[in-house]
Amino acid sequence: MKSYREELWFNVSGRRAMINITPEVESGLRKSGIQDGFVLVNAMHITASVFINDNESGLHQDYDDWLEGLAPHAPIDRYRHNRTGEDNGDAHLKRQVMGREVVVAITNGRLDFGPWEQIFYGEFDGGRRKRVLLKIIGE
Amino acid sequence: MKSYREELWFNVSGRRAMINITPEVESGLRKSGIQDGFVLVNAMHITASVFINDNESGLHQDYDDWLEGLAPHAPIDRYRHNRTGEDNGDAHLKRQVMGREVVVAITNGRLDFGPWEQIFYGEFDGGRRKRVLLKIIGE
Amino acid sequence: MKSYREELWFNVSGRRAMINITPEVESGLRKSGIQDGFVLVNAMHITASVFINDNESGLHQDYDDWLEGLAPHAPIDRYRHNRTGEDNGDAHLKRQVMGREVVVAITNGRLDFGPWEQIFYGEFDGGRRKRVLLKIIGE
Repeated sequence: MKSYREELWFNVSGRRAMINITPEVESGLRKSGIQDGFVLVNAMHITASVFINDNESGLHQDYDDWLEGLAPHAPIDRYRHNRTGEDNGDAHLKRQVMGREVVVAITNGRLDFGPWEQIFYGEFDGGRRKRVLLKIIGE
Repeated sequence: MKSYREELWFNVSGRRAMINITPEVESGLRKSGIQDGFVLVNAMHITASVFINDNESGLHQDYDDWLEGLAPHAPIDRYRHNRTGEDNGDAHLKRQVMGREVVVAITNGRLDFGPWEQIFYGEFDGGRRKRVLLKIIGE
Repeated sequence: MKSYREELWFNVSGRRAMINITPEVESGLRKSGIQDGFVLVNAMHITASVFINDNESGLHQDYDDWLEGLAPHAPIDRYRHNRTGEDNGDAHLKRQVMGREVVVAITNGRLDFGPWEQIFYGEFDGGRRKRVLLKIIGE
């Protein structure tokens, strides 16, 4: 069994963003030399997500509106978590809807994807440096 | 390390459905000959889910009602994504709640399941041929 | 490839709880002797979750309030599933939001975590013995 590990770093200037990280995952996969196995891509922070969906900006705005409806940012005192001095209670909830991680099959040295699958980093509490872990196991 | 890959094909005639795919996953596992490892089962399309829950039709109708409440199909102009000419904006949201994929342990050549666990394909935008990927790694 | 399997047992006295199981997962990892690979941690029951987030009690109460808003327990006749004699329809919905499983990378014999990541068992229908599966593959 071979394995490969890489961290991807992000520093989103606003509060929220969705960033296509498929090229970075593909680049890591090529560096790994692994032809067959699984890649795990996960947010290392608990107010961010990694998810797979469509690379379409209107949809990403739909996600943002929808998540804000399900777990509004303000008023910040609606979340007990914010009594700790944080203002990111909503981000911990939004991240659960979108998910922490994806596991993708690797076949013939490539991400084994359907026609529209792309991997995104979802930031829900930006303004600082945060990481995504890329870990590949296989042969 | 051994690996096995199979695609399952679906063509749901209506817009939405939940289909038990546990027998197909078990059949693939037997064909693989893998006794110990992980199986990844994921939707290859971004308006569908693979999830694990109970094989109970009343629950599936509860899921459908609940998802329609969280992300209504109509009016279709409520989603920016539908300005691209699609009418499936809601399906991209519903799929995030139910999830893209499951990873299941394989032990002694069988899905290592609790008493009620079954694997389902969740279709949220039917009417065309779509796929699920089954990928197994192990020994 | 090496593998390791362990079950964690829970018996939550109330209906709902969130329990930090990171120490038990780390203990299993040490027993496995695996230095590099993946660990899968999943609920074996379909009214419970395993998820990764912050070890902060205010946040856990926020999750509980939020999930109760998204999928209220009562009145129990709001769910078709409860016509089977159950009263846990809501628990099957809450579990989908929080997720069934997590996959965590193992690097140098440790959970490859960001600064605040911790693993939790989320119980949404307590009052009986239920299990979590810990399965590790790697080298």
